[in-house]
Amino acid sequence: MKIIIDAMGGDYAPEQIVLGALQSAKEFGVEIILVGRGEDILASMKRHGWDTLPSGVEIANAEDVVDMHADPAEVVRQHKGSSMVLGLKMLADGAGDAFISAGNTGALLSAATLLVKRIRGIRRAAFAPLLPLGNGCILIDAGANTECTPEFLLQFGCMGSLYAKKALKKENPRVALLNNGEEDTKGDPLHKEAYQLLKAAGEKGIINFVGNIEGRDVPADRADVVVADGFSGNVLLKTMEGTAIYMGGLIKEMFYRNLFSKLGALLCKKGEAIKKRMDYREIGGSMLVGITKPVIKAHGSSDALAVRGAIRQAMNAVESGFCDDIRDNIAAMTLLREEKHAQ
Amino acid sequence: MKIIIDAMGGDYAPEQIVLGALQSAKEFGVEIILVGRGEDILASMKRHGWDTLPSGVEIANAEDVVDMHADPAEVVRQHKGSSMVLGLKMLADGAGDAFISAGNTGALLSAATLLVKRIRGIRRAAFAPLLPLGNGCILIDAGANTECTPEFLLQFGCMGSLYAKKALKKENPRVALLNNGEEDTKGDPLHKEAYQLLKAAGEKGIINFVGNIEGRDVPADRADVVVADGFSGNVLLKTMEGTAIYMGGLIKEMFYRNLFSKLGALLCKKGEAIKKRMDYREIGGSMLVGITKPVIKAHGSSDALAVRGAIRQAMNAVESGFCDDIRDNIAAMTLLREEKHAQ
Repeated sequence: MKIIIDAMGGDYAPEQIVLGALQSAKEFGVEIILVGRGEDILASMKRHGWDTLPSGVEIANAEDVVDMHADPAEVVRQHKGSSMVLGLKMLADGAGDAFISAGNTGALLSAATLLVKRIRGIRRAAFAPLLPLGNGCILIDAGANTECTPEFLLQFGCMGSLYAKKALKKENPRVALLNNGEEDTKGDPLHKEAYQLLKAAGEKGIINFVGNIEGRDVPADRADVVVADGFSGNVLLKTMEGTAIYMGGLIKEMFYRNLFSKLGALLCKKGEAIKKRMDYREIGGSMLVGITKPVIKAHGSSDALAVRGAIRQAMNAVESGFCDDIRDNIAAMTLLREEKHAQ
Repeated sequence: MKIIIDAMGGDYAPEQIVLGALQSAKEFGVEIILVGRGEDILASMKRHGWDTLPSGVEIANAEDVVDMHADPAEVVRQHKGSSMVLGLKMLADGAGDAFISAGNTGALLSAATLLVKRIRGIRRAAFAPLLPLGNGCILIDAGANTECTPEFLLQFGCMGSLYAKKALKKENPRVALLNNGEEDTKGDPLHKEAYQLLKAAGEKGIINFVGNIEGRDVPADRADVVVADGFSGNVLLKTMEGTAIYMGGLIKEMFYRNLFSKLGALLCKKGEAIKKRMDYREIGGSMLVGITKPVIKAHGSSDALAVRGAIRQAMNAVESGFCDDIRDNIAAMTLLREEKHAQ
């Protein structure tokens, strides 16, 4: 298995990306192609004691870099020679089995769609991170599609279910729709219609639809797959992150303030277990679901550990064959022309 | 000052509502009208040692109760004799200065709009809870309006700013728009247009607009007022709540698991300070902003402490005169006919 990695994307590129890739190649025995400026990659390697490329690791030279301000719609045309575009072309051409980038999210979405292509019948690809919660929970879409139709949300639910079967190893994942209340009458027209489509898919046995879910219940293990429009999915994901960081700060403050400060600090170390459980670096990045091959968006501030997490996730995704599962089940998640008109 | 309270609304009504009201009447020296089934109210009082009504506390009898399944659109017609409808009528008639209910949220919104009325020029009233974060932060709208226009969001920003000046005692509150990214090009058409309107209001000095905010930064004290459409505002609020509960559980689990379990439990008591800081009961309910007089939605599971918080909040709201501030500044937050057409 061969994983293609954008060595130039992310806040700590290329150093941390290269470091994470080389460590993972050794640890997991996976082949890696690092795409980026060869000189910079080699310099990063040297700083960490690698004088030559380990076996199984290649460099594909790419002089250009897609920065955070690049216009996603123009990236394939304007950054032909970038590590992101070249890496995705290599994936499309079969030079590797999956692609990982910690770079510009919009650019990755747009370039992956243009170059690696959506699975035939899929209207939109969606970002599907694994939420750092007890038993794991997949959010789909976390921000790829700001504007959605009910059919997009139906497809997110079906794709999310197939992905969860493999990624969470759940036979019959519970699929819920993020809404502003649990009752089936809740939501704006988009969410009301999406509810009906998902409910119908549930009745046909295509998914295990468990109804609407509120933000409050997402961490309460009420669903394995949370379907969202990209706007509110993004709000959910980032609010979870912000609240966790905020509470982490309060906890620290409390310990350092109180009389038992040293013991507190000691216990805080035990608290690392919590941190680890809520650490995105352990669980990988956001899978771009709906594309013909696994494409993963790693966190923008990925360090070597996060890159390792994303590589492990990519390996699991390739092995699981979930992209084929989606392809094989496309008929069940596509509205017929007449069904669309009925909406 | 006289606060009208729906004694029958909420999971622990009338017992906890009555208890909180009587305690607050004594503690704050405020007059209270309890609206609800007189017998039930008196029975609740007796169970807690009150044999007669304390001075300053009245009962207004209402035989009917609006339950959680009542249709908001029909509540004024179908539940004429309910504690919620009668209480709001009393507020409209000037029998009291503010109204509090822990009952059906949609019904309260609809009945308050019909009976107490929106301030002239305000398109929609919005729920504006104070988020339980360090320096306080007002979210507007938290769920009253699932579908919004850019003008609604402009008005939420202006009303939220006026409310924050009084409720947070900030001279020049920072107003931000909840969006799926910080850049000014982010969002769907609604949020893009709302951004432009809020920016223009900022340039005119009507508000201190600081741009878009992501869910991640809401707890990071980047804004005093977070403007949201009711759908994503609801997702934000409930996700914060759910994540805080989830993390609280992890912390407890960690303490009880580790070797220092007893010391851990001791430290956990110190952790009550965190709980208190994130406890909605201390900070009151959701203000329904845009209505001619203060109307507060208390949390559905309000106990006496939460009722006390809501009463204190109502008193502050009445004293602050923020409803008059909105009335006095309505011209600045209303789009002219030609501006609307230009959209």
